[in-house]
Amino acid sequence: MSLPAEFELIRRYFAPLSGPGSLSLADDAAILQPRPGWSMVATVDTVISGVHFLPEDPPDLVARKALRVNLSDLAAMGAEPVGYLLVTALPSATDEAWVARFAQGLAQDQAEFAIGLLGGDSAATPGPLTITITALGQIEAGRALLRSGASPGDRVYVSGTLGDGAFGLKIARGGGSGIEAAARAHLLERYRLPRPRLRLGRRLVGLATAALDVSDGLVGDLRHICEASKVGAAVESVRVPLSPAARALIEAGEASLAEALTGGDDYELLFTAPTEAEPALARIAAELDLPLTRVGEIRADPGLDVLDESGRPLALGSGGYRHFG
Amino acid sequence: MSLPAEFELIRRYFAPLSGPGSLSLADDAAILQPRPGWSMVATVDTVISGVHFLPEDPPDLVARKALRVNLSDLAAMGAEPVGYLLVTALPSATDEAWVARFAQGLAQDQAEFAIGLLGGDSAATPGPLTITITALGQIEAGRALLRSGASPGDRVYVSGTLGDGAFGLKIARGGGSGIEAAARAHLLERYRLPRPRLRLGRRLVGLATAALDVSDGLVGDLRHICEASKVGAAVESVRVPLSPAARALIEAGEASLAEALTGGDDYELLFTAPTEAEPALARIAAELDLPLTRVGEIRADPGLDVLDESGRPLALGSGGYRHFG
Repeated sequence: MSLPAEFELIRRYFAPLSGPGSLSLADDAAILQPRPGWSMVATVDTVISGVHFLPEDPPDLVARKALRVNLSDLAAMGAEPVGYLLVTALPSATDEAWVARFAQGLAQDQAEFAIGLLGGDSAATPGPLTITITALGQIEAGRALLRSGASPGDRVYVSGTLGDGAFGLKIARGGGSGIEAAARAHLLERYRLPRPRLRLGRRLVGLATAALDVSDGLVGDLRHICEASKVGAAVESVRVPLSPAARALIEAGEASLAEALTGGDDYELLFTAPTEAEPALARIAAELDLPLTRVGEIRADPGLDVLDESGRPLALGSGGYRHFG
Repeated sequence: MSLPAEFELIRRYFAPLSGPGSLSLADDAAILQPRPGWSMVATVDTVISGVHFLPEDPPDLVARKALRVNLSDLAAMGAEPVGYLLVTALPSATDEAWVARFAQGLAQDQAEFAIGLLGGDSAATPGPLTITITALGQIEAGRALLRSGASPGDRVYVSGTLGDGAFGLKIARGGGSGIEAAARAHLLERYRLPRPRLRLGRRLVGLATAALDVSDGLVGDLRHICEASKVGAAVESVRVPLSPAARALIEAGEASLAEALTGGDDYELLFTAPTEAEPALARIAAELDLPLTRVGEIRADPGLDVLDESGRPLALGSGGYRHFG
C-alpha cells in the first residue's frame, strides 16, 4: 500500500482543514449550532473515478467540484453554507501526492466559501476512488426556496449562461477543434469548476417562489419545478443565455441549442418569481455582476413547451427526459 | 443492467422511507429544525462490500448495521437521532431483490429508532457495492458528551459486554466449532447487528465527564479519551464484562481476553464519571436493563495500564495500538 494508514492520512491532510464544530475531527460526531430561529439544511453527493470524473483529472479540481456541486444544492435552497463531512474511499494504489493535491483543493474552496471540514470517514477500497461529501448549511426557519412554490403568471429565470457544462464535457472528451483555444478553456473550466450561486440564493429568499440548481438541464429541471408546483411552463428558447464560447461551439456544428437546454452540469440557479420582482432582480443582477435572464413563464396548464423563435415546439431529442422514461 | 434507473429505484424503494424534513426526497436538500436551544450533531460512515461486510451477508442486516454504527456515534455524544442521508453506489449487476431487502432493513430500523430518511444520492459504480450514511441528531447546546472531559479520580465504565463484536467476526469467518450453536449465534448477531446505546447516551448527559463508543476496542478507545482529556488510566482486566458466549469461546481456546480488550465493533459506550455518580449510574443500569460496569480509573499520570488479576501488566499484542503505529 502506497498510502500511510488512515490515522496518519487524516493527521497530515484532513485535520488541518477542520473547522469550528468539528472538534478537531477527534470526537464521534460534529456539533453545529444554527443561529436562533434558523434551520439546518443538509445534502449529499458522491463522485466516482471513471464515472463522474476521469482518473487523470487534476485532484484539486476533483475536490473543488465535489464540494461545489453540494454547495450549489445549498444555494438552490437559499441557504448559507456552514461546513461539510468528507468520505474518501481510496484504492491502495492511490498516490499520496494525489491526496495532498486533493486536500489543497479543499483548502482553497474552504477559504473561498468560508466553510470548514466538520468530520468524515476514510476507507480503503478495492474499487475506484470515490468521494462523498455531505454539505451542511443554515437558513431562516420557514424561508427555504423550494421547488413547489411556482404559480401561474410567475416568470422563469436562469442565472449566468446555460450549456457550458455539457459543452465543457465535449471539450474534455477531445471535442472543440473548430473553436478557439480560449473558448475551449472557458467551457472546460465551466465543466470542471462549477460556481455555486450562493450569494444569489441568499438574495432570492423572500423573492423567488421556487428554485433549484440546473444539474439535469433546463428542460428536465424546469419540469421538476412544474411537477412539484403542479403547474406548466413555456420556455422561449431564443431567450436562453449562452456564453460566446457556447455559441461558437454551436456555430462550429459541434453542439446544438437543444443540447444546451437538456445537458446537465450547469449549476446555475433556475427560479420563478412574480412579475413585480423584476426591478429587484435587475438590481441583484447588477450588484452581483451576474446576468439573470427571463426565459419563460409559468402557466396553469400542465406540461412544458419549449418554443423556437417562430413559436413552434423545439425538437429536443431525449436528453432532458432521461429521468422520465 | 439488471437495475431500474436511479429515478425509478428511488421512487420504488427509498421515497417510501422519507421522513419529516426530507421534502419527499424531491428537493435539493433536506431541512432540519433542531429544538430551540439545541445543537445539531452530524456523523458519517461508509461500508464497502468485501471490506466491511461480505457480499453474501443478508442485505437487511447490512443496511441496519450501516445505520446503527452511525447511530452509535450519536449515542456517544448523548444526542437524540433525527434522521439520515443515504448514498448507495451500486454495481450494475446488483439484483433488484438485494435493494428491496436492503430498504426493508432500513424501514425496520427507522421504526425502531423513530428516524426518517432525509435525502441522499445514488450512483452506479464499476467497483464494489458501497453504502455511506450521514446520521443527524440533536443535543441540548453545550451539553454534548465529548472525549475531552475526563479528570483524575473519575471512574471508567462500559455498557453491556465487550469482545462480542470481534468474536462474532471469528464466527462469521467459520470459527467457533468448540462452542454451542446458541453461543455462536449470539456472537454472530452481536457482530452483525450492533445495538446503539441511544437511551443510555441521553441519560449520561450531565453525568458522564467523557464518552465514546467502542469501535476500536476498549484499549484503543480509552486511549482516545486519555489523549483528548490529557490524563492516563488504569484498567483492571478482570472487571471487563464478557458475555457467557465470549467466555465460552475463550475457554475453548479460540479467543483471548486480550482480544476482547483490543478487538473492535462492540459499539458499547465507554465513559468516565466521578465517584458521586455511582448511585445514579446504578439506577440507570436497572431502568435500562443494561449492565454498566466499572472497569478502571482515570489518573493524572499519562499512559494506560491494563492490569491482570495480580495487578501486573497484561500482554495485549498489537491490536489496540493499530492507530498508533
